[in-house]
Amino acid sequence: MPDMSGTPFHILLVEDNEDHAELVIRGMRDQQVANSIHHVSDGEKALDYLFNRGPYSDNTEHPRPNLVLLDLRLPRVDGIDVLRTIKSTPEFLRIPVVVLTSSEAESDIAQSYDYHANSYIVKPLDFKSFTRLMKDLGSYWMSWNAKPARD
Amino acid sequence: MPDMSGTPFHILLVEDNEDHAELVIRGMRDQQVANSIHHVSDGEKALDYLFNRGPYSDNTEHPRPNLVLLDLRLPRVDGIDVLRTIKSTPEFLRIPVVVLTSSEAESDIAQSYDYHANSYIVKPLDFKSFTRLMKDLGSYWMSWNAKPARD
Repeated sequence: MPDMSGTPFHILLVEDNEDHAELVIRGMRDQQVANSIHHVSDGEKALDYLFNRGPYSDNTEHPRPNLVLLDLRLPRVDGIDVLRTIKSTPEFLRIPVVVLTSSEAESDIAQSYDYHANSYIVKPLDFKSFTRLMKDLGSYWMSWNAKPARD
Repeated sequence: MPDMSGTPFHILLVEDNEDHAELVIRGMRDQQVANSIHHVSDGEKALDYLFNRGPYSDNTEHPRPNLVLLDLRLPRVDGIDVLRTIKSTPEFLRIPVVVLTSSEAESDIAQSYDYHANSYIVKPLDFKSFTRLMKDLGSYWMSWNAKPARD
């Protein structure tokens, strides 16, 4: 059910590929649910964002996300370490994390589920499928999935 | 991406409300991905199914599910205990579990995420939305989400 409270749905997008980030941002902009996408390009920035450190210290401007879209191969801190930190930190563990990666490696899939990724999606190679994925993914997590309360 | 291997996608549906079960089964039958739905009506049967106990001992007839759709209020063993068992058993923890319930209680949502439910969905009250949910849920988990390998 869409959130009618007027608060936008906040998405943290952790993606170092600018083209992919652009596709995700565009895909979310086209959703029926009002949302705000916060894009960071490496794993260290993702953790700084979540813990409101450094340039992300203002938690009005950088609110806790309702969903994390997480690439795996990332500079500085790897995606799997970001996932592990989220899912082992009591205040963050309820945030749904969807791994969104080019890797189809069985070991990446297994490890992501072992660290409690909520879902694992392999990025489609063609533009049309990527756009369709964004539509389906956005409506699933923003409209159907129940958002956990803050604490 | 749809699984082209010819093996159907196995869903374990744990639901004591026969009307809801019928809607889910019908919704999955209409999916583009070949699937096989295994319906049990209480939490004890769900665990017997997963561990191939008693009437579920034949694991060809009762294969490990690729997805569990789990109601919360269940006779004999509660849904939350089924979830907890799945997510604390190494051979099952990678199986995506979607809680599908009438409960909108914040405590149920929080507890489900704490026990690593992959997703939490409140059953829509009207038939049309329920049907649309089944379509979206089926395509998300069967077509987009990457299935973990058995071990």
